[in-house]
Amino acid sequence: MSVRVDVWTDINCPFCYLGKRRFEQALDEFPQRNDVTVVHRSFELDPNLAPDVSGSVAEHIAEKYGIPVDQARANERGIAAQAAEVGLAYLTDGRDFGSSFDMHRLLHHALAEKKQEDLLDALYAANFAENEALFGDRERLLDVAVRAGLDEDDARRVLDDPDAFADAVRRDEQEAAALGATGVPFFVFGGKYAVSGAQPAETFARALQLAWGDQLVPVGVEAADTCGPDGCEVPGTTD
Amino acid sequence: MSVRVDVWTDINCPFCYLGKRRFEQALDEFPQRNDVTVVHRSFELDPNLAPDVSGSVAEHIAEKYGIPVDQARANERGIAAQAAEVGLAYLTDGRDFGSSFDMHRLLHHALAEKKQEDLLDALYAANFAENEALFGDRERLLDVAVRAGLDEDDARRVLDDPDAFADAVRRDEQEAAALGATGVPFFVFGGKYAVSGAQPAETFARALQLAWGDQLVPVGVEAADTCGPDGCEVPGTTD
Repeated sequence: MSVRVDVWTDINCPFCYLGKRRFEQALDEFPQRNDVTVVHRSFELDPNLAPDVSGSVAEHIAEKYGIPVDQARANERGIAAQAAEVGLAYLTDGRDFGSSFDMHRLLHHALAEKKQEDLLDALYAANFAENEALFGDRERLLDVAVRAGLDEDDARRVLDDPDAFADAVRRDEQEAAALGATGVPFFVFGGKYAVSGAQPAETFARALQLAWGDQLVPVGVEAADTCGPDGCEVPGTTD
Repeated sequence: MSVRVDVWTDINCPFCYLGKRRFEQALDEFPQRNDVTVVHRSFELDPNLAPDVSGSVAEHIAEKYGIPVDQARANERGIAAQAAEVGLAYLTDGRDFGSSFDMHRLLHHALAEKKQEDLLDALYAANFAENEALFGDRERLLDVAVRAGLDEDDARRVLDDPDAFADAVRRDEQEAAALGATGVPFFVFGGKYAVSGAQPAETFARALQLAWGDQLVPVGVEAADTCGPDGCEVPGTTD
């Protein structure tokens, strides 16, 4: 059997970055990891941001939630400490914010190109571990896409067409809402087991085991028409 | 949410042809059909056939199972009557048999090209509804592949390389065995609900509903690190 894992994330979300790593730690130890398919789904923490708005994340957070900038910076240092524990680089200063809608569109394109994992890793690295600004800069985004192995012209075409994969992003967000997810990361294992947040690797390991271990439930009548190594059984014509 | 349906089939299997249609009848009526992903998996009814062996299916069946050829032909007429009930063309004479291994390899290639559904339909049509022989004839197989929308050169490359997708076929077969499937068609809905055989459309409808209706089961602690519309909560640093 195979297990599918759906992971709702936002590029703006530090705990998605950390949660991905913890999930991967569990996946690396999972005996049937080659039979696990991971699909990253879209979730915008702030879907109302205009595409051209960006700026310092600490100041933005301080303003948005009415906390001192120092506290927002302390938050960043707290997250950086957690990131360091799982071996992830995390810059505590200068991270920017902005709309992630185009990035999610590009992640859907990357899924079709089997490069989604690479693109998400590259986006997280660009956002959390590299000094250069990421948001509101199309050429920077294209650089990241190319680094992830996407064809530059294809990626440019996706970005140039605001409708490309836009519905796919919105469908993902509707599905997250329908599942009751109000924050990210949000993981669903085998369509059944939900893990909310950057939980310890052990939690992800348990969810993988649960999804894997589910026994099949037979549906329908027992004696239906099948073909097997001994031929096709046709009730009513052979006896 | 989305539901994945895995369907083990063989091109040699009349009930897979019928079962696919009955499943599609249920799928057409299913309100969330756009969120259902169908993946066709490999199952060879006779994995020991040499690639160049082929011949009349009625005579082959008669010989293999020690029944009169007339009875094998009567079987075919019985299946044709069932096929007619679901609007499928089915020739009762002249169907050939042979190894389906290369067809399964090509179906895996088609899956990557998003043409699997088209190729399987074209293979079934070629085998059950068209007079021309199908097995052991590479050019005929290429014709069918092109008709299904595959690039001819790509398809030829897959057929020319006996290793291409060979492991994928074998993995599918191992998984079917691990799931206890001894015949086909064999359907697994949402990794959980199994339907064996060409059951009535109502059975497939029920399996779709069951897979769709499964509620999420939360795993892990309640208060984990998440980011939401109101920011990222970092236990221990903000209070």
